[in-house]
Amino acid sequence: MKFQRLALIGCGLMGGSFALAMRQAGLVQHITGFSASEKTRQRALELGVIDQACSSVAEAVQGADLVLLAVPVGAMHSSFAALRDSLSASALLMDVGSTKCDVIAAAKASLGERLNCWVPAHPIAGKEVAGIEHAEGSLYQARRTILTPLPQNSIRQLKMASEVWTAIGSHVSQMTPEAHDATFAAVSHLPHLLAFAAVNALTAQPQGPAFMEMAGPGFRDFSRIAASDSSVWRDILSANRAEVRTQITHFRAALDQFEAALQSDNTDALQQLIQQASDVRSTWTLQAGNACSTASED
Amino acid sequence: MKFQRLALIGCGLMGGSFALAMRQAGLVQHITGFSASEKTRQRALELGVIDQACSSVAEAVQGADLVLLAVPVGAMHSSFAALRDSLSASALLMDVGSTKCDVIAAAKASLGERLNCWVPAHPIAGKEVAGIEHAEGSLYQARRTILTPLPQNSIRQLKMASEVWTAIGSHVSQMTPEAHDATFAAVSHLPHLLAFAAVNALTAQPQGPAFMEMAGPGFRDFSRIAASDSSVWRDILSANRAEVRTQITHFRAALDQFEAALQSDNTDALQQLIQQASDVRSTWTLQAGNACSTASED
Repeated sequence: MKFQRLALIGCGLMGGSFALAMRQAGLVQHITGFSASEKTRQRALELGVIDQACSSVAEAVQGADLVLLAVPVGAMHSSFAALRDSLSASALLMDVGSTKCDVIAAAKASLGERLNCWVPAHPIAGKEVAGIEHAEGSLYQARRTILTPLPQNSIRQLKMASEVWTAIGSHVSQMTPEAHDATFAAVSHLPHLLAFAAVNALTAQPQGPAFMEMAGPGFRDFSRIAASDSSVWRDILSANRAEVRTQITHFRAALDQFEAALQSDNTDALQQLIQQASDVRSTWTLQAGNACSTASED
Repeated sequence: MKFQRLALIGCGLMGGSFALAMRQAGLVQHITGFSASEKTRQRALELGVIDQACSSVAEAVQGADLVLLAVPVGAMHSSFAALRDSLSASALLMDVGSTKCDVIAAAKASLGERLNCWVPAHPIAGKEVAGIEHAEGSLYQARRTILTPLPQNSIRQLKMASEVWTAIGSHVSQMTPEAHDATFAAVSHLPHLLAFAAVNALTAQPQGPAFMEMAGPGFRDFSRIAASDSSVWRDILSANRAEVRTQITHFRAALDQFEAALQSDNTDALQQLIQQASDVRSTWTLQAGNACSTASED
């Protein structure tokens, strides 16, 4: 497996790291890149992430046998539309979106007969800092990448997609788009939302800053993901809002149980609720392949 | 400053670590210890944490010039009552309780004229594992200890209390009991409760275990404190329930804002809410003296 021409749409942390990894693995000959910001694509060129900076999606995609769409979830629709007419019928197109059902809807609405070129992908990787400056070829190593194949994908394409991520060190899993979005609403999107809300609840109180001065490592770890990028997470939470709201409902039910136990000072019920959480969390361990250092994309 | 006889009431992680630290600092000659479990006090003796295992609180406290009450918050009341009649009028008595207003109420109800011997203390330290086996003399080093003095305390006593914690490496602060309880409800008790509830919300769903298999480091850090000890946290949440419920109310208001933005898919409002949290959390840093490795006592 070797690609003649990789087109990178979105020269940020995720896309830049993919390009570097592919180059380091010797899997690609030439890399074209497009970013909406001319400054960003020039920087990607200077850093040697791409070989050629293109001023349009169409120009970058022309003649590419591999295309990676590494733009925020909210920009997927317009990107699909912009690349459709330049995409070769035999090209492999992948994205790195953190939500899948909405990106699939966007692709169905805008990719036309090129829909079957696209294998939806979500590499569970990232960093607390964004941008091409922080791109590195090792970003996907020992990370999990989830593919949510379409019925239109060929076995050959799916195999190639899997091989690409494996070649750059990622552990590949497959899920349905629905299971993907439900899963990440539960274990990533809701925790982010709760951490954001917990910090905002502190800020809303006049004593908030004084409170936070006394906070220890429990607060530090619990709230770490609240420092995440607002445009990335606006897109994720908005795109997956139905599943996120379902998870909020489950969470509120669990919170209600605690509040009822506190209200009646039912210490047995309270201990039982805590014990249940403690037992589950104590026996949980991070699965190999899920490890990453991100606050923005996990 | 040197004590002839330290009485340790509660030979667990917190008490055992205090005894070891005091001994290592050369601040104490003889250490008596009581724990409700005979096995525990024998183990404390074997490990050299105490010099003498006593079968009653009264026996341990007799003749002590320093007494540390290191029992769960829920056991404070009976411990105060049990030691009152044996406590020397010139002794310094301290506790290590994570809540203060309720412990003060317990002391007022049961310490009688020995109330002025007691300087309420909360060392912000601990470990994810409990018990005398894990005690270590360095537990309080570079940690913060908060004193919430009583009007009855003498300047001399307060100074001595402060010197004890400083001598074993802790940074000492003073707060009112009310400010202490409000602060830790906001930055410790509520985050623990939210983490417990988030884990229980997952467990309540049939797909919970499958969801958790895909969870990454964001979930790992966010939920770490959900593994905390259930009896310790039952006591803390119950003792401080009024302040905790106030914090739940603030949290619910912040959560409602997110839910309203999701419901109307108001992405501007959503981004603003996230940005506010992200700005606050990005600029927050753990204060020197608040650092500790605990999941159970921070």
